[in-house]
Amino acid sequence: MLAVHLESGAVSIRETNAPDRPPGFALLRMRIGGICNTDLELQRGYYGFAGTPGHEFVADVVQADTPQLIGRRVVGEINLPCGACQFCAAGLGRHCARRTVLGILNHPGAFAEFFTLAESNLHVLPARLSDEEAVFGEPLAAACEILDQISISQHDVVAVLGDGKLGLLIAQVLHAHGTRLVLYGRHEAKLSIARACGIETDSSGDRPRAAYDVVVEATGSAAGLNEAVAMTRPRGTVVMKSTIHGSVSIDTAPIVVNEISLIGSRCGRFEPALALLKRQRVDVRSMLSAEFPLSQAPAAFAEAAKPGVLKVLLRNDRA
Amino acid sequence: MLAVHLESGAVSIRETNAPDRPPGFALLRMRIGGICNTDLELQRGYYGFAGTPGHEFVADVVQADTPQLIGRRVVGEINLPCGACQFCAAGLGRHCARRTVLGILNHPGAFAEFFTLAESNLHVLPARLSDEEAVFGEPLAAACEILDQISISQHDVVAVLGDGKLGLLIAQVLHAHGTRLVLYGRHEAKLSIARACGIETDSSGDRPRAAYDVVVEATGSAAGLNEAVAMTRPRGTVVMKSTIHGSVSIDTAPIVVNEISLIGSRCGRFEPALALLKRQRVDVRSMLSAEFPLSQAPAAFAEAAKPGVLKVLLRNDRA
Repeated sequence: MLAVHLESGAVSIRETNAPDRPPGFALLRMRIGGICNTDLELQRGYYGFAGTPGHEFVADVVQADTPQLIGRRVVGEINLPCGACQFCAAGLGRHCARRTVLGILNHPGAFAEFFTLAESNLHVLPARLSDEEAVFGEPLAAACEILDQISISQHDVVAVLGDGKLGLLIAQVLHAHGTRLVLYGRHEAKLSIARACGIETDSSGDRPRAAYDVVVEATGSAAGLNEAVAMTRPRGTVVMKSTIHGSVSIDTAPIVVNEISLIGSRCGRFEPALALLKRQRVDVRSMLSAEFPLSQAPAAFAEAAKPGVLKVLLRNDRA
Repeated sequence: MLAVHLESGAVSIRETNAPDRPPGFALLRMRIGGICNTDLELQRGYYGFAGTPGHEFVADVVQADTPQLIGRRVVGEINLPCGACQFCAAGLGRHCARRTVLGILNHPGAFAEFFTLAESNLHVLPARLSDEEAVFGEPLAAACEILDQISISQHDVVAVLGDGKLGLLIAQVLHAHGTRLVLYGRHEAKLSIARACGIETDSSGDRPRAAYDVVVEATGSAAGLNEAVAMTRPRGTVVMKSTIHGSVSIDTAPIVVNEISLIGSRCGRFEPALALLKRQRVDVRSMLSAEFPLSQAPAAFAEAAKPGVLKVLLRNDRA
């Protein structure tokens, strides 16, 4: 089968054997995959990654222990927990210390003709949800995670910093939640996607100080975190949504003096994300920039890394 | 009157006029004052401070609008809020943007024969509380603030990092709360004060990873914050209690991946602190290192800056 391979900064396509299916796992045939900034970071070798990436996908179930799953079109949660530890028992398998993670940590990813994932991780898709919409399930779940972590009331005013893919999804999730928010960014073309959804945007470069109850940092830049702290009112909350490679230099004094809370936020549950997609409460189609066949993954990765490009899809043209 | 003066790194004693008493304020005669690490930072010029420091004190009320206050022995909250903004309305005057702060921000401090403070900031002391105990009211309130900010359950295990004055007070407050905790430090003499209260301590230098539900960072060092994050379990909480001068280089990845919350924590309410002192639930006497007359403030500041020294008091020998 075809599989994307990342190693030492290079993206290649290989012919390999299809994976064995362990008990409890489904063998999946990729339909489409989405390239995430994390994939680009894996490519850059940030985590010593070598192997097949891919954790945003829509796939068909080819083999499974559960007969009803076979032939169904699915998306899936990417963390594969041990099932036995205290985090797993608490329903927080995505924090299991022994977890593997699809396409990220010790489990080959979805950018291949075939891959495996635990059956319990799968969510069967309704027919009315297109592949191009459903592939946003995973990043949209990460955006929804914020609402599982903190309570945002109708009195709160929220700023989202960063108009990349994640910032746009977060702004849309919060807007769908009924939250008053402003999306801050620097790219008019990206901000216009949010404005078309009715979201207030700001590209002026001005950042009001101590003005927001909650600031979501999704810039992916070290400067963004200090900006987020400065924009948060005393006793307010900064949601740290970007993973920033390396160390970030931050001034802790305003955090302590203003008693600000910083909350790290990563993957989320798929249920609220799929519900938003089904009810068409978010517009993900406007975020599609390009599509490549799986066999042209190197070109797709190069495209995804260009400034101004939003979601780049890979399609399994052998499916 | 005598007043301590800080300017450009130097501590001096000056003869000045006693301050005028504005309406709503009490004129206070200092009995004793405590030198805090913040005072040492003000001395170093970190905040461009020039003037009379001092925010830990016990004083006698000399003049006041409220006749019942005159002659009483008091401690006092140090933030002087505007009284009109949303934070003041919410009872969070210590986050008022227009506040002044005794001995720190635009209000002359307590290290003088006489000083002023709003009557509403004062707490009258019972006779059974000595000056040497009551002077810990302010830093103990800062330690108690943690319990006003986060809920620590009987199932939680807590680490306190740092065996300085603040770390020792925090450990004692949490121990009095019934919390299971370990105090991590490097100074056996200081840790022994905590052990005498029944608190488990660790000076081994080993820092267990992802082991604690809550980690309180009170080292005052940049390294402490990264250590605190590493010691916190996924979805756990780091309380940022130290003010660290300048920028701190932190790795944000474990905060995001493990969805850790960092909560800045500063001043607190005096009520729980005074209750702990009255009920003798904390031992502050063991933390007294030295006492100097007000007229020898330069020597007192020099003593307080020495490694291993805990609380240094100034006594108003003209009172």
